[in-house]
Amino acid sequence: MSMLDHTHDPATQSWVESANAADTDFPLQNLPYGLFRRAGSDESWRIGVAIGEQILDLWKASQLGRWSSAAQVHLQGLGRGDLNSFMAAPSAQRRALRQALFEALAAGSPQQQALERCLLPQAQAEMAVPCRIGDYTDFYTGIHHATTVGKLFRPDNPLLPNYKWVPIGYHGRCSSIGVSGTAVRRPLGQLKPPHLEVPSLAPCKRLDYELEMGVFVAGGNALGQPIAITEADEHLFGLTLLNDWSARDVQGWEYQPLGPFLSKSFGTTLSPWIVTMEALEPFRCAFERPAGDPAPLPYLDSEKNRREGAYRIELEVWLQTAAMRAAGQAPTRLMRSNLGHAYWTLAQMLTHHASNGCNLQPGDLLGTGTLSGPEAGEGGSLLELSDGGKQALTLPNGEQRTFLEDGDTVIVRGHAQRPGARRIGFGDCAATVLPALRPA
Amino acid sequence: MSMLDHTHDPATQSWVESANAADTDFPLQNLPYGLFRRAGSDESWRIGVAIGEQILDLWKASQLGRWSSAAQVHLQGLGRGDLNSFMAAPSAQRRALRQALFEALAAGSPQQQALERCLLPQAQAEMAVPCRIGDYTDFYTGIHHATTVGKLFRPDNPLLPNYKWVPIGYHGRCSSIGVSGTAVRRPLGQLKPPHLEVPSLAPCKRLDYELEMGVFVAGGNALGQPIAITEADEHLFGLTLLNDWSARDVQGWEYQPLGPFLSKSFGTTLSPWIVTMEALEPFRCAFERPAGDPAPLPYLDSEKNRREGAYRIELEVWLQTAAMRAAGQAPTRLMRSNLGHAYWTLAQMLTHHASNGCNLQPGDLLGTGTLSGPEAGEGGSLLELSDGGKQALTLPNGEQRTFLEDGDTVIVRGHAQRPGARRIGFGDCAATVLPALRPA
Repeated sequence: MSMLDHTHDPATQSWVESANAADTDFPLQNLPYGLFRRAGSDESWRIGVAIGEQILDLWKASQLGRWSSAAQVHLQGLGRGDLNSFMAAPSAQRRALRQALFEALAAGSPQQQALERCLLPQAQAEMAVPCRIGDYTDFYTGIHHATTVGKLFRPDNPLLPNYKWVPIGYHGRCSSIGVSGTAVRRPLGQLKPPHLEVPSLAPCKRLDYELEMGVFVAGGNALGQPIAITEADEHLFGLTLLNDWSARDVQGWEYQPLGPFLSKSFGTTLSPWIVTMEALEPFRCAFERPAGDPAPLPYLDSEKNRREGAYRIELEVWLQTAAMRAAGQAPTRLMRSNLGHAYWTLAQMLTHHASNGCNLQPGDLLGTGTLSGPEAGEGGSLLELSDGGKQALTLPNGEQRTFLEDGDTVIVRGHAQRPGARRIGFGDCAATVLPALRPA
Repeated sequence: MSMLDHTHDPATQSWVESANAADTDFPLQNLPYGLFRRAGSDESWRIGVAIGEQILDLWKASQLGRWSSAAQVHLQGLGRGDLNSFMAAPSAQRRALRQALFEALAAGSPQQQALERCLLPQAQAEMAVPCRIGDYTDFYTGIHHATTVGKLFRPDNPLLPNYKWVPIGYHGRCSSIGVSGTAVRRPLGQLKPPHLEVPSLAPCKRLDYELEMGVFVAGGNALGQPIAITEADEHLFGLTLLNDWSARDVQGWEYQPLGPFLSKSFGTTLSPWIVTMEALEPFRCAFERPAGDPAPLPYLDSEKNRREGAYRIELEVWLQTAAMRAAGQAPTRLMRSNLGHAYWTLAQMLTHHASNGCNLQPGDLLGTGTLSGPEAGEGGSLLELSDGGKQALTLPNGEQRTFLEDGDTVIVRGHAQRPGARRIGFGDCAATVLPALRPA
């Protein structure tokens, strides 16, 4: 039962020329949603769809385009800046709007003339977090990350006994989630190096990024009513890139027994465009556990999840230091990885989350956890790449890094590609580190 | 610099007769805010103020009463059901509205005739969570709880080294927070008893309550800007009772390394009325650490916090089993404790939370953590009262409990009292356990 349709046909071009470039993140086959307004204006925030280098303004499009009444209802809500109501709609309605937008933006569309007046270049737009995030949960599905970090503490037994049974996760902080481009201030925190008896409040010295993806929930479940894994896909709306900024020294001192808190809550960065599950349908693939690993418990297992529960999405982290920026040097790539390395699928994350009856709501955000690859240079954080801060990385300009310095810009990029499909990208998830405030 | 004023005068009576009863939770000196509508109706939700056995309907009061223009602006917003905007107002405005409501409800008020038409008996009202909770953080300030629970795992070293330095906390789940009266369904979860090799999904067998208080944030802080402890009081709006339902067996298996997750996210119960910090002003008291304990770090210390950072609020947990209910037997009290046992003050919780620049927002909820007393019978959870499930409690009707059974109703109650002040109560925080669903 493939969900592929004519919106996945790689041969169809758009009348928006920049969407036809081979390397664009936003071809006609993508159509991700974001919240925008004209930069520097006091316009209302509204939902737009990225197409090539442009944004289709859904507020204007709902007024100037010709749409079915079913599409028009959603376009008006999206034009008012309300993505959550659309996320809550049944997947058939979400797929229908994708089809309507695809047809309207395809070359030869009779809507071209009207919709040309609804475009804004992305370069002229200001973006915001695209929906109201009621709760943010961060998982820990990157088994290579969990193993490498675990080795730093427990060399002989890096993975805890629950790891292959429980999709480990914890509640994150919603208020400090920002969109790409929002600077992140180095936090103050309690630091207690092992050789000191007493902690002190000081600027974090081991500031790190974490390469993750963010999953947005579509329709929710009622409190007390779990979601069967066979129903999970209906509850997934789309994906962004996510940087889970982390203060390693603060984390080391505070995290027992209740987990990370202030080491994570000072900032989380999202890429601005939510790429829908429909756009990612061509990149599903089989989900297989390594030989010898236990099978998931029945509530986390299904034939469909095994057959196509995983998604192949290539991920990269790039760094541009202040010195590189001043010298006009482009960012340098630190690592590459893939969402396919995750030990648990998106459907398993969602199903586990609701298994106790916890009610998920449209717009809720689930982070995957750090998506490191299996090889030494594929760590999704500096903690991994620098072997716990013991081995500095040398950058192309000769600078060295164990952890992040003020002025560093971290850029997460991602895209999916395979023969027979258009390349689907996510846009940059970038933010620059500001110096800490002076402790009071 | 006492903040006491004429609204704390215990001699002033109300024209609402039931507010003058000695044992009411809601005398004229309390004036807590809640979100209500007429039970069984489809009326709009609106904010009301509890007064004796009545609710002053602020929607009607804004139309029928005579108010200063400053009070009228807030009453109209509250009448529309928006508590968050009022929470965000400066404390001087919040105090001014308290004074206006006090004068309007005081015996002899010229407003009596108009406002008599704005009352609804609490028995005829349906309540809801009173504000939009953007983020919920649960702290761990109950040192006697932390010690007792720690002893179950580490008999020789129950308190972790960070406890007396860091106000430990973690992010909680907002979506499953409910108001008193909302039933809580026993969750399914992964259980792995020590004697089994493999976990299974099954109904929680060690379901527990936790006696806490909830603190609501008033005005927030900008992302990246900490709050000085000398400014913390301005950011505190008020308190409720809170039951942090906990699945102990699920928690034991899932919580490493990122902390509690599904063991807590299936339900949290609040009492319906937010008692303001202004109403609790007479119950502030000195905050002293035990001799020999380290002083708090400077950012968590102030002269005012030492002088009057603590609040004396008496707390109780009551239990009524299904058998007791069927036999017409009243609930039985399981324990008593006091907010004054907390190791960290409300101001310290808030200041620590914002110390890394994390932005707090109006309506954010901070739980205190389980507020056990120092004595053996003062545990704030069954885990403590039953010594980790090893020693069953015998109830007055002969039933026994280690953990909660289906049909059990847990009731948290609290009030503040001292000579020279009117008793201030919180109303019941009650919920009944529903049986688990059958695992899929």
